[in-house]
Amino acid sequence: MAKIKVELKDRSYDIIVGSGILDELGENIKDEQLGKKIFIITDPLVNDLYGDKLRSGLKGFTHQTLEVPCGERYKNLKMASSLYDQLVKSAAHRDSVIIALGGGVIGDLAGFVAATYMRGINLIQVPTTLLAQVDAAIGGKTGVNHSRGKNLIGAFYQPKKVYIDIQALSTLPARELRTGLAEVVKYGVIEDADFFKFLEANSHHLNTKAFESPDTLRAALKVWQIIVAESAKIKAKVVAKDETETGLRMILNYGHTIGHAIEALTRYKAYNHGEAVAIGMVAAARIANRMKMINQEAVLRIVNLLEKLGLPIEVKGLSAKKIINALQIDKKVREGKVQFVLPEKIGKVVIRNNLALKTINSVLAEMGCQ
Amino acid sequence: MAKIKVELKDRSYDIIVGSGILDELGENIKDEQLGKKIFIITDPLVNDLYGDKLRSGLKGFTHQTLEVPCGERYKNLKMASSLYDQLVKSAAHRDSVIIALGGGVIGDLAGFVAATYMRGINLIQVPTTLLAQVDAAIGGKTGVNHSRGKNLIGAFYQPKKVYIDIQALSTLPARELRTGLAEVVKYGVIEDADFFKFLEANSHHLNTKAFESPDTLRAALKVWQIIVAESAKIKAKVVAKDETETGLRMILNYGHTIGHAIEALTRYKAYNHGEAVAIGMVAAARIANRMKMINQEAVLRIVNLLEKLGLPIEVKGLSAKKIINALQIDKKVREGKVQFVLPEKIGKVVIRNNLALKTINSVLAEMGCQ
Repeated sequence: MAKIKVELKDRSYDIIVGSGILDELGENIKDEQLGKKIFIITDPLVNDLYGDKLRSGLKGFTHQTLEVPCGERYKNLKMASSLYDQLVKSAAHRDSVIIALGGGVIGDLAGFVAATYMRGINLIQVPTTLLAQVDAAIGGKTGVNHSRGKNLIGAFYQPKKVYIDIQALSTLPARELRTGLAEVVKYGVIEDADFFKFLEANSHHLNTKAFESPDTLRAALKVWQIIVAESAKIKAKVVAKDETETGLRMILNYGHTIGHAIEALTRYKAYNHGEAVAIGMVAAARIANRMKMINQEAVLRIVNLLEKLGLPIEVKGLSAKKIINALQIDKKVREGKVQFVLPEKIGKVVIRNNLALKTINSVLAEMGCQ
Repeated sequence: MAKIKVELKDRSYDIIVGSGILDELGENIKDEQLGKKIFIITDPLVNDLYGDKLRSGLKGFTHQTLEVPCGERYKNLKMASSLYDQLVKSAAHRDSVIIALGGGVIGDLAGFVAATYMRGINLIQVPTTLLAQVDAAIGGKTGVNHSRGKNLIGAFYQPKKVYIDIQALSTLPARELRTGLAEVVKYGVIEDADFFKFLEANSHHLNTKAFESPDTLRAALKVWQIIVAESAKIKAKVVAKDETETGLRMILNYGHTIGHAIEALTRYKAYNHGEAVAIGMVAAARIANRMKMINQEAVLRIVNLLEKLGLPIEVKGLSAKKIINALQIDKKVREGKVQFVLPEKIGKVVIRNNLALKTINSVLAEMGCQ
């Protein structure tokens, strides 16, 4: 079991990473100054898989489970409003606890509800997808979608704890696992060359096949424990330095500028988050290479690792023009300029907003855009 | 002009209090690191009175005014959602600025939108009612109402500046002025006996009649400048010590426990906020006297000052039982116990949650409850 501290002064908290630890959560939080009333917000699928195990360890608390239908389209103000209703009905108070048990949708939605119900109640993130474990559940970003944009409404709100059971990875569909891997690769590129090497050396463990037999599962879980803990550590370090994304934290957006545009343009269907980010990371690396900021070999290592992990490295069915137009509405625009995170080498990125549209356009064309 | 600093580390900000200073806001904020795109959120009434003066000073910024219909019933998620829409349409970004120009409804709603649009954009509070100037606009409480409770949805979100023009008080209806005075009296009771004395000595200035002739207006504005600045200073001090109301800040709820119950039970019509708080302060003082915590003379001074200012000191048309039941749903309940702020003397209060229902009941009966 690993414990990683997110250093945020009076809002500091621990990330716990372990295998098969879901039923120890109650014990783990019993000494913290939290209320005794717990509301587990989850979806039917995750509830079926992990609800009972989590609940079995909540001795000394009263608890109630609130289910949200599966799917990103329920991550909206209407569903938040229905959760507020249920919390009021059950007399949830300021020291009650919300446990967000599930993937990114649940974490974002339950986190937003915790952030805004009575101006904030206790929140514990229990992420069950790789994407949520290495990214969404750490750092306090919460939010819901609005008809005009994804995560357009939200708040920075830190949990009291992030509690990660990597055994949950063994029930993920292959595509879900891959979408999280894109963020894992990102951490290597932006911050840690050794971690990137570790991923290159262990890429054969990083797929659902590794979970199929007890032997490979055991070996895989060891590797996953390292990967999830290391990713969490890098994310925690960046967040600690810049809680509300005014500066450094923007490096976490490596691959996300173009990635978000592609997700939005394909209506979150043709490409999921990690797939779009993978394409975005390739594009940003190639743009950096054009600008003579990074060498060709490093770009190839990024492209090869993503490909080995089954992630897309080319764009299909979108024009470069559409992508560039879509950049304008993204949250990463500051005073009309698009922010790009560009790698200088594996393990180091910089933020630029002076890119020539011509360069972006020509790289996207090379990558398959018409 | 007075400048009061709210000390909240990296979220510190200034409260500016002056007379006729609305058109100097642009100049005042020009050296701060804010974006150049301003969205003024206001209502038609306030916009007519003060919009032009505010806008005339916003040189060097682009600005747009978003109107919200007058009234508490528009302080809801639906209106927030419509404001998000308008912000997206006008390409508001993370460094854009929202100016909340108006009373408490506008401050709460615009503050909540600023807190949650793209996880938080710059907010400047320009309160135009006494209640908002001395209370709502300071301290970062934002929120909207929900069908099941007032301010049930919200966030703690600090503004970049609070900019108070006391000339705005001269256009307030008498009842609006009185509702703010209840909070002013509260500051004296909870924190500052000298300030309480000042209010006793100057109560003749504290009504709309004082605004009617140029002579009395001049004298009144001098008194108001002191009162608003002093109230802001006390609120700022308490907030600085306890940003998210986990401890000390609860003393600001003096009079609010019973006050909120009365407001809710009379559907925010029979009694407005300050009127209900005035009744709540009298009740809490009397309860404290029953518990031998405060002497009779101090209770009488509180009652007399409130009465002199035209505020109610008795309850009409409500039963004690109903009020006591309504206490349970209020945000000030912790683990099932109702928190009461009780005065020990003028200038000092303590927090208690061990009150006998019998005492509350009998004090309310004395105050006119059936």
